[in-house]
This record gives sequence, structure tokens and C-alpha cells, in this order.
Amino acid sequence: MDIVSETVEKAVVERRFDLKVGTEVVPGIHWLPEEPAPSHPTVLIGHGGTQHKRAPNVLALARALVRHLGVGAVALDAPEHGERVSDPEAASKARRGLEQRLGADSGSERRGVSESWRSVMAARIPGHVREWQALIDDLQTMPAWSAGPFGYWGLSMGTSHGLPLVAREPRIAAAVLGLNAVASADDPQASLAAKITVPVLFLLQSDDELMTRDAGIALWDALGSGQKTLHLNPGGHIDVPRFEREAAEQFFRRHLLA
Amino acid sequence: MDIVSETVEKAVVERRFDLKVGTEVVPGIHWLPEEPAPSHPTVLIGHGGTQHKRAPNVLALARALVRHLGVGAVALDAPEHGERVSDPEAASKARRGLEQRLGADSGSERRGVSESWRSVMAARIPGHVREWQALIDDLQTMPAWSAGPFGYWGLSMGTSHGLPLVAREPRIAAAVLGLNAVASADDPQASLAAKITVPVLFLLQSDDELMTRDAGIALWDALGSGQKTLHLNPGGHIDVPRFEREAAEQFFRRHLLA
Repeated sequence: MDIVSETVEKAVVERRFDLKVGTEVVPGIHWLPEEPAPSHPTVLIGHGGTQHKRAPNVLALARALVRHLGVGAVALDAPEHGERVSDPEAASKARRGLEQRLGADSGSERRGVSESWRSVMAARIPGHVREWQALIDDLQTMPAWSAGPFGYWGLSMGTSHGLPLVAREPRIAAAVLGLNAVASADDPQASLAAKITVPVLFLLQSDDELMTRDAGIALWDALGSGQKTLHLNPGGHIDVPRFEREAAEQFFRRHLLA
Repeated sequence: MDIVSETVEKAVVERRFDLKVGTEVVPGIHWLPEEPAPSHPTVLIGHGGTQHKRAPNVLALARALVRHLGVGAVALDAPEHGERVSDPEAASKARRGLEQRLGADSGSERRGVSESWRSVMAARIPGHVREWQALIDDLQTMPAWSAGPFGYWGLSMGTSHGLPLVAREPRIAAAVLGLNAVASADDPQASLAAKITVPVLFLLQSDDELMTRDAGIALWDALGSGQKTLHLNPGGHIDVPRFEREAAEQFFRRHLLA
């Protein structure tokens, strides 16, 4: 991990780093308390589709976790997101397409994302899971950075990455997932969810333009975890209430600090 | 309100009182901080069927609210519950019947409570709602007891009482409800729920022996509140996880103390 820059804002240290994974250079951010405990947990924050490692909700969550729990937080740009966009025009088009879907009538029959978008996203998942695992490896080389345990927070696309990561990675002790669904009878997300056994907080929006409520609940049903709580709120995909951040803090406090 | 006794345990004042409402004497408990703020909110706690004003979960919640939020809490014995049982044999039989239902296979088609039990319960609701309102009136006569605002917490039978109370009573600013359902197409609970506009935290258990999950979610759907969060957990009617008490505290902190 190469530290590119380090700043302190609102009592939170923010380190911009580059992580080399194979031939890829993955830009990320590590947020830390100014005086971290010698051995502290870290929460991995997976951003949503068309977002990036320092999107407003990612930054706000990271700072809240550092300030209120004294843990570290890290975020990476997902493939073709943030500083990793190779074709800005295609990225803009994807963002506009998503924005149109999110403005669509939630009563529409056309909920869900297109097959082509789904397959493009799916192809990027295995590589990004390896990047998260490489980041955990790297963090653990420096006890001052993080001795674990690790938490994972990621909604929507962050859950598409989080399901295989949490299913495979024993160093992750608890996860906040959601805004995602079992899209079809053969959706591999259901079997990945079944492999997850750590506590999960799962967020859904009742009028999500990208999925039916039943398909979202089916993904919660599929989770193998004995302790899994679904939080359902009214509104669309981007309307997750602010207080769910507080619920996530409470969840990580219980499972990473107890 | 006649104070029958006053004790202090674990830094919480506990006052046993009798409230006269018409010809009824309603036994209740008022929990308070040892040094309450001059104007503090109060949470009304409605116990479940076959329980009473000092059932273990009622007592634990009351003490947690007093200690962690500095608010007051009150509970009443519902009609034919606790010290108001007029026919101990019938009450024992009702308790055994409920325990049998709760032990039943959650996959059974026979979810729900019997029509006769439902009609007995329904007949007692209007009177008990008046008792809760009389209690609020009484608390407000003494600013040291409670200036409001008021919260309501009640699951299962506590929600059967809570729906009409919260729908009608403007002094209640937020409510935790759940473990209850829209039992049929003409269930009046749906229209009562529609009249509620204050924030609601709604708890459901995915394998509740007394209702289908869909019927429970239908009651959440029916709520008129713009801010309403459903928390769904695995397990049966009596398996609500302990951490949902912490979620209720956080909810009341946000709506009664902000």
C-alpha cells in the first residue's frame, strides 16, 4: 500500500493510498482516529454503482464510524468507478441510465436492471473481491492499521461485491448489506447469501425502482446467518433514511467492539 | 392516581399506583429517574397477552429507558391481566392455550389466533384505551411526573391496544408496535393503522406462530406514517432479539429527546 497523501479533517485522519493487486493499481482511502487504539477493528465500505470511494454517503459513514466507534474505515474505487474509469463517456451514460431508472414509476413492471448491465457488473466482481482481500492482507501487515476484526458495509452494487466477499472471507465478522435482490430463479446471489453465517443487517426500500420488494426479501431469506435483521423503509432506492447510518453504527459496535 | 408504594432499585424509582377510571381501579407502575429532569418525556409500555405490568420484558425495557434516556415509563395491567384477573382458572387456560400455539410448527396452516379469542380481546380494547388516556391526563397534572411528549411501546396485544390509542391520541409522538397483523380483509386494525401519522418502529418475527409474515407486513403497509421502519428477524413470536430493545431506545431518543 503506497500512501499518496495524508490529511486530517474534523478529527479524522484520511490517507489516500494506492494498492497494487497484480497489474492493477487500486486507489483507496483509509480513515483512522487521530489516536487509534493499538488494536482496532476496520470497516470496509463498498460504494454503490456509479459512485466512488469518497461519495458523500461513504465519507459520512466512514467519519461517523471513526468518531463514534474509534474504528478504522477503508474504501476502494470499484473497477470502472471513480479514478478507475477508463471510458468517461460510457461511465456518464451508465450514470444517466441509472438516474432514469431511479426516477421511474415504482409501480412499473420494469423493475430491475437490464441483463446487459447485470452481466457487465458480474464480470467485474471476482477481481474486485480479490482486491478487497488483498487490502485486508495489507492492513494486517501493520498492527497499527488494523488487527481486525473486519466489518463490511455495502448496499446495491456494494452488496453484489459484498456477498461473495463475506461468504469467502473469514476475517469479516459482520456485514451491512441490502438494496439488492434475488433477481431470478438461477441468481447466484442466493447461493452466495446461503454461505454467509456472520450477523447481517440488511436494508431494503419498500418502493425500490430497481427490484420488487419480494425479490429483496428473498435475498434476506437466503442468508445463512442465524442473526440477520431486515430493516425496511418506505421510499425509493436512494431514499434510505439517515437514521439507518446510526443503526449500522450500533450494529458494528455490537459485533466489532463487544 | 394513588401511590401504593415506592421503592428504588438499581437507581430507578418504581411507584406502584392505582388509577381510578370510572368504576375500575387500574393497577399500574411508574418508573422514574432518581433525579428526573423537570420536564421529561414518558413512554407508555403496553404488555402482551397473558403478561402483566411487571413482566420481565416490560420491567427491563422500563429500566433501560429510565437509565439510558432519563425519561419516565409507565405500565398498566390490561383488563383481565395481572392483578385484574377475575377468573384465575380462565386466565391459566388462556395462557396454556397461547403457549401451545407458540410451540406449534411455524409451517402450520393454522397460524393466527382463534376467532373467539380475537372477539374477547377486541371487546376489551376501547375501555383500555380510555384507561391509557386517563393515565396521560393524570401524569400531566404533575409536571414533575411528565410534561410529555409521550411514546408508546407495545407488541402483540400491546399493538392491538396501541393502534387505536396512537391513532386517537395526539399527545403520543412516536410508537414501537409489532407482532401483529392484518388478520382478514375486514380487520379494523388496517384502518386504525392508516390513521397513525407519527413515526413508528414496527417489529415482526419471520416465523411467528400467530400470523403469516405477509399479514404482518400488510399491517406495516397500512400505517399512515411517513416515517415507519419495519425490523424483521428470524424466529417465533417470543424470539424478538434482545438488541431490538436497544433499537427502541435509539428510536425514542430520536423522537422524544431531539
